[in-house]
Amino acid sequence: MENKMYNIKMILAYDGGKYNGWQLQGNTDLTIQGKLEEKLSMLLGEEIKVIGSGRTDRGVHALGQVANFYTNQSVDVKALKKKINEELPKDIKILKMDIAGERFHSRLNAKSKIYEYRIWNGEVPNIFERKYCFQYKDHLSIEKMKEAASYLEGVHDFKGFCSNKKMKKSSVREIYSIQIVKEGDWIILSFHGNGFLYNMVRIITGTLIEVGSGKRKVEEVEKALESLERKDAGFLAAPEGLFLKEVFYS
Amino acid sequence: MENKMYNIKMILAYDGGKYNGWQLQGNTDLTIQGKLEEKLSMLLGEEIKVIGSGRTDRGVHALGQVANFYTNQSVDVKALKKKINEELPKDIKILKMDIAGERFHSRLNAKSKIYEYRIWNGEVPNIFERKYCFQYKDHLSIEKMKEAASYLEGVHDFKGFCSNKKMKKSSVREIYSIQIVKEGDWIILSFHGNGFLYNMVRIITGTLIEVGSGKRKVEEVEKALESLERKDAGFLAAPEGLFLKEVFYS
Repeated sequence: MENKMYNIKMILAYDGGKYNGWQLQGNTDLTIQGKLEEKLSMLLGEEIKVIGSGRTDRGVHALGQVANFYTNQSVDVKALKKKINEELPKDIKILKMDIAGERFHSRLNAKSKIYEYRIWNGEVPNIFERKYCFQYKDHLSIEKMKEAASYLEGVHDFKGFCSNKKMKKSSVREIYSIQIVKEGDWIILSFHGNGFLYNMVRIITGTLIEVGSGKRKVEEVEKALESLERKDAGFLAAPEGLFLKEVFYS
Repeated sequence: MENKMYNIKMILAYDGGKYNGWQLQGNTDLTIQGKLEEKLSMLLGEEIKVIGSGRTDRGVHALGQVANFYTNQSVDVKALKKKINEELPKDIKILKMDIAGERFHSRLNAKSKIYEYRIWNGEVPNIFERKYCFQYKDHLSIEKMKEAASYLEGVHDFKGFCSNKKMKKSSVREIYSIQIVKEGDWIILSFHGNGFLYNMVRIITGTLIEVGSGKRKVEEVEKALESLERKDAGFLAAPEGLFLKEVFYS
């Protein structure tokens, strides 16, 4: 791979609803990465390996996933983008395609990411956005959710907010900000951080929903951070509400 | 039906994607009306017939369809609305339920309607709205579309803009306004009229798209109005872009 001459960077969007995530370990059946590699390899006539900024879980969406791949060919990126969008299924599209420097690596060079979690808090379920949000009709206190979120901002060991029990690497991450905005019946949570553990955004969201609904006290969030125990954090919020929004590079 | 004492009015939304329209003549399999009647009859324990403001075609959506039904029971509309929304599928929901005067009739009393047609005119197809718009990537001249639309406003015989060839009743209708708004890559067409013939909004939309793309001259729209011939109007635009937005009563 490293001996290929050209490095192409892509920004892409996908509806993760029917996919087994960006990449399923040991089984590439119906993954976003698999679809991209299949279509790029076909169009370019060489075996293409796609590197993503990170994995998204089964059912999670992306508005701005970043990925790159190496090729032996000098590529007309405008024409290739058009062609591959014609070949890709309706739920995966390339928004932008550029020639990158040879050292650019989507995952290793990523400095931070923004994830967005969308909650529909209306009395009547939302029909047209039903596959792109978590529907929760009971009252949620935005004030309490914001207060709980403020405990999670900063540098912490998020081991208790991770589904991977056998985690060997460091589970310390920095969350720069958690924004919670209410617009009509929507509650939109935005998480900006230098990295996120497996299921971390969805477990934090589940915890904040439990705080907002009164099932959990604000102080319990601090306790879950200290204990490092998964059982002290909240439920795993559904994947269909989660979007990888943006990946930042230096 | 007329001897039932209580008349209930509903405003409802639905994703028409998987339904054979509001009502399929001679076959009630998988229609919006059929689903409503099934669930209301079950909950109320009597046979309920639902009257809609009008039919929507197979695959067409509604943001504010109006319907009413008669029942023998004094209904707690707030509780019934909650219950039926729990029973209805995810793509049909009641937004509002009220007790109406006994003479209220969703179809006969309707004074006018607004339909909205959504065109995604972006270079890259829209992933998350793909089931709720018509995707057209080539250039469309909004100015020409507006000019052509102005010919269609007012009182006209819209026989040429109707799919029903054996139409016996009058095909004269009044379109109060056709608004065309461009917002980013969206082009939104709003049709306000006192009534619309079978497929009329979609045929007008198809005609306006052909004018906007340069395939058809603005003046040809006037000709199609005069000739009353279906062949002189444009193509039938896809149902997934169309929404019944609002029904007005005096």
